[in-house]
Amino acid sequence: MADLVTARRSLQLADDGWAVDILDQTALPHTTEVRRLTTLADATEAIRCMRVRGAPLIGALAAYGLCLALRDDPSDAGLAAAVAAVTKTRPTAVNLVAAVDRVARVVRLCPPAERAAAAYAETAAICDEDVHINQAIGEHGLTVLEGLARGSDPVQVLTHCNAGWLATVGGGTALAPVYAAVAAGVPVHVWVSETRPRSQGLLTSWELSQADVPHTVIVDNAAGRLIQQGRVDVVLVGTDRTTAGGDVCNKIGTYLRALAARDNGIPFYACVPGPSIDWHTPPGAIPIEERDPEEVRIVPGTLPDGRPGAVRVLAETSHVANPAFDVTPARLVTGLITERGVSPATADALRARYPERAG
Amino acid sequence: MADLVTARRSLQLADDGWAVDILDQTALPHTTEVRRLTTLADATEAIRCMRVRGAPLIGALAAYGLCLALRDDPSDAGLAAAVAAVTKTRPTAVNLVAAVDRVARVVRLCPPAERAAAAYAETAAICDEDVHINQAIGEHGLTVLEGLARGSDPVQVLTHCNAGWLATVGGGTALAPVYAAVAAGVPVHVWVSETRPRSQGLLTSWELSQADVPHTVIVDNAAGRLIQQGRVDVVLVGTDRTTAGGDVCNKIGTYLRALAARDNGIPFYACVPGPSIDWHTPPGAIPIEERDPEEVRIVPGTLPDGRPGAVRVLAETSHVANPAFDVTPARLVTGLITERGVSPATADALRARYPERAG
Repeated sequence: MADLVTARRSLQLADDGWAVDILDQTALPHTTEVRRLTTLADATEAIRCMRVRGAPLIGALAAYGLCLALRDDPSDAGLAAAVAAVTKTRPTAVNLVAAVDRVARVVRLCPPAERAAAAYAETAAICDEDVHINQAIGEHGLTVLEGLARGSDPVQVLTHCNAGWLATVGGGTALAPVYAAVAAGVPVHVWVSETRPRSQGLLTSWELSQADVPHTVIVDNAAGRLIQQGRVDVVLVGTDRTTAGGDVCNKIGTYLRALAARDNGIPFYACVPGPSIDWHTPPGAIPIEERDPEEVRIVPGTLPDGRPGAVRVLAETSHVANPAFDVTPARLVTGLITERGVSPATADALRARYPERAG
Repeated sequence: MADLVTARRSLQLADDGWAVDILDQTALPHTTEVRRLTTLADATEAIRCMRVRGAPLIGALAAYGLCLALRDDPSDAGLAAAVAAVTKTRPTAVNLVAAVDRVARVVRLCPPAERAAAAYAETAAICDEDVHINQAIGEHGLTVLEGLARGSDPVQVLTHCNAGWLATVGGGTALAPVYAAVAAGVPVHVWVSETRPRSQGLLTSWELSQADVPHTVIVDNAAGRLIQQGRVDVVLVGTDRTTAGGDVCNKIGTYLRALAARDNGIPFYACVPGPSIDWHTPPGAIPIEERDPEEVRIVPGTLPDGRPGAVRVLAETSHVANPAFDVTPARLVTGLITERGVSPATADALRARYPERAG
């Protein structure tokens, strides 16, 4: 149990070498629960219910879902069914489709008896890459934060949602530069948006508390005023999908923060792993997940008796809209912090960083 | 009980002619509770705890607070103490200070024995004026909505917080044009922001449900995307204080909606009663209330057993910032819908509408 938390790992292979242990993020920050996933159905349920969330992490778990499925049925039909089941869990994060495609492509070249092993090997490679990508984003992001540092005053970072180690296999995307700054002795303070309706800001607050990083939680509405008051030096967010032109699809509310950053002349950076770049889909065609209205009607928390629970704040009859993501246009993005350095949010600059994807 | 709801009255004199009955807004939307206020302490508690909220309404209740105090002690010292007690309850809405000053000015001219009666008379005048102001704002706002109407498609209004009849003595400010549109047969649909941390969007949803006005609740983060998608025709908000230059201080998060409106070329109007205009204070000097961190840590709702209750979503040790208002600069405001018509958000235009305040 404590192992995952101590190691800052959101997911890992179980000791048996094939089951997958995850930190159940629907139980956090109230309780630390590790869940063992042993079937494709376990994996798809964990993604759909957001026991595991964050674009890089759901990519990794989707890949593990194929591994678990291929242990049971390594036939072509089994593979196709598994790919279909995993792909339909959540539509917006492009990492999921990218990871599934990558594993499926390798597996199809193998005879059925070798497919599960090949899938585990390719999934391990995806996970290792995510760890390295996170680390590189941390280093490039650290350069950005160092550029904003002024002596002993902390660099004031505002983030949205959770893009820390809970959202990735490695050390996070938007929080990687923060952790790198702390390690490098650059003083930093993080403003944490609550991030309704799922309140992933509480996950960020939990992560930062674990690492003793100074931070302050605010409701989503307060981001604009803090920026207006000059109390924020830089906005750092993750991404679920960034287009070839640099438009950043991320947690609902990100666009509002980008507008406030622009209006007040502070930089807005998205931390973008290569696998989160969608080289083909234009921003208007990104599928934006519409989630269950109950997320808006009901609020998770701890009941008066101390048990984790939920309260209804809105009657079942109330109409609710619940889009989970928005798209921040490239014109509002100061830069994309990728594992290959900080890139302007333009098609030319991105192509220059990823020449193998050009054309 | 039902009387206040049926009559759409947030506050009224009790049958005895001196106590004040309020609809307790901390119990809404879960339960309808009327509370009788009989002392100055009752009134200040109701304002501080937000049993009564909304700039025009707290102005009216502050005035009634003086009335109740003067029944007990009509001396100069009693008056001064009452003014001080009421004034310090909440700092941002200028209506409170304006109403208190107005009543105190009249009362000081009277001998002690006549002061309570004079205070009640002046407070009644303030309340009557609010009713008329609300009605005129509704009529001028209706003209704005009619200008946006396209046949049978509903005009899509986005509002923030609650600026309906619950927030005023009369029929509301930002919702007055909506109610006027419904009465005039102009189809309208309202997007209701949840408005964390106090969730006054639930009050707006309750008000609109009572009046059968079609509406949809969203989390605060979703406002930008809806506007970006062209699903909003106009943003209508109230104000706690608008400067002589047209800067609009209102519920935290208003500024973010104004930015999104501007970025997407849709109009942003504040509905501004004359008494909410502060002719002297520059926008940077408006006192912005910082409220209890518990509002962010704890979420109100209905417990699983059906009782209204609260859940803690964040540990007591977490640092929290909780500013209650922000200031939308005049440059982002399409117009101010006042009881004297729709005014550009400029000092010259406002002075022309209120020549008696000029200079």
